[in-house]
Amino acid sequence: MSTSSLRERELNNLIIVLVRARDPNNIGAVARAMHDFGFGRLRIANEYPVSFQRARSAVDASSVLAAAEEYSTVPEAVADCNLVIGTTAVGLRRQEHPILTLAEAAEVIRPAMASGRVALLFGSEKTGLSNDELSHCHWLLTIPMHQTEGMRHASMNLGQAAAVCLYELIRAPVSTALQTPEYAAAAELERLTELLIDVMKASEYSRRHPANFNEVMVRRLVRQMSLDHSRALAWTGILRQVLWKLESNRSLDATTKT
Amino acid sequence: MSTSSLRERELNNLIIVLVRARDPNNIGAVARAMHDFGFGRLRIANEYPVSFQRARSAVDASSVLAAAEEYSTVPEAVADCNLVIGTTAVGLRRQEHPILTLAEAAEVIRPAMASGRVALLFGSEKTGLSNDELSHCHWLLTIPMHQTEGMRHASMNLGQAAAVCLYELIRAPVSTALQTPEYAAAAELERLTELLIDVMKASEYSRRHPANFNEVMVRRLVRQMSLDHSRALAWTGILRQVLWKLESNRSLDATTKT
Repeated sequence: MSTSSLRERELNNLIIVLVRARDPNNIGAVARAMHDFGFGRLRIANEYPVSFQRARSAVDASSVLAAAEEYSTVPEAVADCNLVIGTTAVGLRRQEHPILTLAEAAEVIRPAMASGRVALLFGSEKTGLSNDELSHCHWLLTIPMHQTEGMRHASMNLGQAAAVCLYELIRAPVSTALQTPEYAAAAELERLTELLIDVMKASEYSRRHPANFNEVMVRRLVRQMSLDHSRALAWTGILRQVLWKLESNRSLDATTKT
Repeated sequence: MSTSSLRERELNNLIIVLVRARDPNNIGAVARAMHDFGFGRLRIANEYPVSFQRARSAVDASSVLAAAEEYSTVPEAVADCNLVIGTTAVGLRRQEHPILTLAEAAEVIRPAMASGRVALLFGSEKTGLSNDELSHCHWLLTIPMHQTEGMRHASMNLGQAAAVCLYELIRAPVSTALQTPEYAAAAELERLTELLIDVMKASEYSRRHPANFNEVMVRRLVRQMSLDHSRALAWTGILRQVLWKLESNRSLDATTKT
C-alpha cells in the first residue's frame, strides 16, 4: 500500500519541528516514523543541540536524521512555513488557542500541504511547548486519549505521538475539491507582529493598557487572523501608514514643544 | 476528549499479545500506549520471558505491565479469544492470509470487541510472526506505509506500531459538527469595520492608497479575521487608542498651524 493520496511534493511540504527534545532515542524514533510514512523534513529547534548530535551519531541513524536542519529558536525554524501547528496533551488547558483533534486537524493540514509548507511542532518530553513557543502557532492539535476520572491526563511518548500524527496524515485521500487558503509565511506574520507592537507603543496603547499588552498576546492575535499572503500585505500597508503618521506627529509634537 | 465511542467493557475486550518481544523498552512502550488509549490487557507469549521481567522492573512500569499475563505459546495466549488478528509489515507476502489495512481492520475489530474478546498479535522486532504463529490468526492487519521503488520495505518500531493501531481503534470519525468558535456578532464586526475605516482616514492611508481603500474591501478584511468576541474586543481597544492618538495629534497639528 503506498501513500498514494499525498504526492511526493506534498509529503515534502510537511516539516516536523522538535522543540527542545532531550532524549536522542526519541529523536531517532520520530525520524524513523517519518521515514516509515514517507516524510523527510525534520527540524530541530534547540539552543543546546546535544541530544540531536547524539541521535545523529546513533548506529541506525536514518536519512531523515542525516538531512535534519538545526535552529536555535522556534521562529527561525518556522520562518518559511505557511501554517504552524503546535501539538499538546489535551489535559493542558490552552484556552487562548483553538484546539483540534488529530483527525479534525488532518482535514485542514492535508490540503494546506498541497499549497504551502506546514510545520508541526512537538515540545520537549517533560514540559511540552511553552506559551511563547505556542504563540507562534496558528492553532493546536491534540491526540484524543483515554481519560480516567481523577487520574492525571496521559501524555504520549514523543516517538509514538509523532507516529500517530503521521499515520493520520497519510490515512485518508486528499479531497481535491477543498479550496484552501494560502497562508502567509511565518516570517511575514512575525514582521506584522513587530509592526503592530510598534503601533501599540506609538499610540500609547501599551502604556495605557499594560495588562493587555505583551508580545506573546500580540503574536497570538496576529496568528489568529488566519491571514493569507495578500491580506498580510494589506495589513502591513495599513499599519505602516498608521505608524508613519503616529511617528511624524510625534516628531511634530516634539518640534512644537521645543 | 474521551474515548466515548468504545465503552469500558469493550476496551477490556481487546487483548494485545506480544510474541517473542526482545527489547524491554519496546514492551514498556506498548504498555504505555495501551494506557494512553485506555486499553489494559497485555499478554506476553514468550518461551523465555526475560525481557518481559526486565520491562516490568523498569522504573516507570505502568499498571498495564503490572497486570500483564505470561504465556509460553501463542495458542495458550489466545485460547479464550474469539477473533485473533496478526499484524504484519505489508512487504512480507502472506498470501495464505487475508490482509486488511489498519483502517479496514478497525471497522471489523470494533464491533467484534462489543461481543467477544479480540487478540491483536505483534511479532518479535526482528522476525515478526512466524508462519506457525500466523496460522492461529483469522486474518492479518497491516499499517500502510510509504514505499519507495527499489527500497526494502519499512517495518515499524513495535511501540510505534502498537500506538498507531490503538489510536485507530479508538479513533472517532470526524464529527461534522466541528467545534466552532463563537464568532463575534455581525454588529460588533461592523463597528470594528467603521473604526478601521476611521483609522485609515486619520492616518491618511485612504488618501495615499485610494486603490486599496474602499468600504467593501475593509469590511471583507475584518470579516476574514475570523474574530471571536474577545479578540474583536481586543482589536477594538487597540484601534480606538490608535484613532484617539491620531486625532489628538491632528488637533495639535491644527493648533500649531494656526
